[in-house]
Amino acid sequence: MNRIILITLFVFSTCQFSFSQTFEGDKKEIEKIVENIESFSKYYTSGDYDALANAYCKEATILPPGADIIKGREAIKKRWILPSGVNVPYHKITPIEIKIIDNYAYDIGYYEGKTIRKDKSEVSWKGKYLIVWKKEDGDWKIYSDAWNKIN
Amino acid sequence: MNRIILITLFVFSTCQFSFSQTFEGDKKEIEKIVENIESFSKYYTSGDYDALANAYCKEATILPPGADIIKGREAIKKRWILPSGVNVPYHKITPIEIKIIDNYAYDIGYYEGKTIRKDKSEVSWKGKYLIVWKKEDGDWKIYSDAWNKIN
Repeated sequence: MNRIILITLFVFSTCQFSFSQTFEGDKKEIEKIVENIESFSKYYTSGDYDALANAYCKEATILPPGADIIKGREAIKKRWILPSGVNVPYHKITPIEIKIIDNYAYDIGYYEGKTIRKDKSEVSWKGKYLIVWKKEDGDWKIYSDAWNKIN
Repeated sequence: MNRIILITLFVFSTCQFSFSQTFEGDKKEIEKIVENIESFSKYYTSGDYDALANAYCKEATILPPGADIIKGREAIKKRWILPSGVNVPYHKITPIEIKIIDNYAYDIGYYEGKTIRKDKSEVSWKGKYLIVWKKEDGDWKIYSDAWNKIN
């Protein structure tokens, strides 16, 4: 029933570097995690903070740069809410390695985005992340999420 | 044979905050991970970079702030080597949550340390981390390691 797959895709970016994607685990479960990764960006760019918070486990932790560990869905939601007049019209997550182990999975990858500030100035950013996913109530949710910038 | 344990210790620091430690998994395996965490600090403060590199899986990744993802034991070793005349006499890791899932474990916690620069000036630092451990050849090694500072 559960087909265990190992997918390695070689992705050649438009820039000077190439990287590979390695996904290991049940095909449908991997697809669900990848779908949830894409949804995360949609929730963030559309300012749907309830859906964004719901992407995390109730007892999740996030490790944002320059802050203490933030624990719990409500506290995490607060952390993501952008100040009035600020928005993030572009956000993209590119997982490079996902492996499912039982009801958990680790996920290593890159994120990038663009912020438009109150004064309409734009800033682009790029970083990397390590996420631990947990299957909770039949859906994959983020259990722990650490990230930091590349430059 | 394998006693599954859930240890929650309440640790009261000398500062203003308290935190709990939650360790979940086979008691002996948890003890081994905690031992390896302590050894990591010893290797770093004593400049034993071979042992430090060996704390990581061969195919490990690290996600240091301000740099790209670094993959592989040799590249990771290079990243840890301090410049001549610089040393880290103090390094401490405090895990707050460890959970073993099969041959993997996640580990969330704090690190702190002190660097003495070439000019003998000192700088103290503190941050947090998310680690994925993997049991490889009978020992627990770091498979992926992301961290960033608190302030």
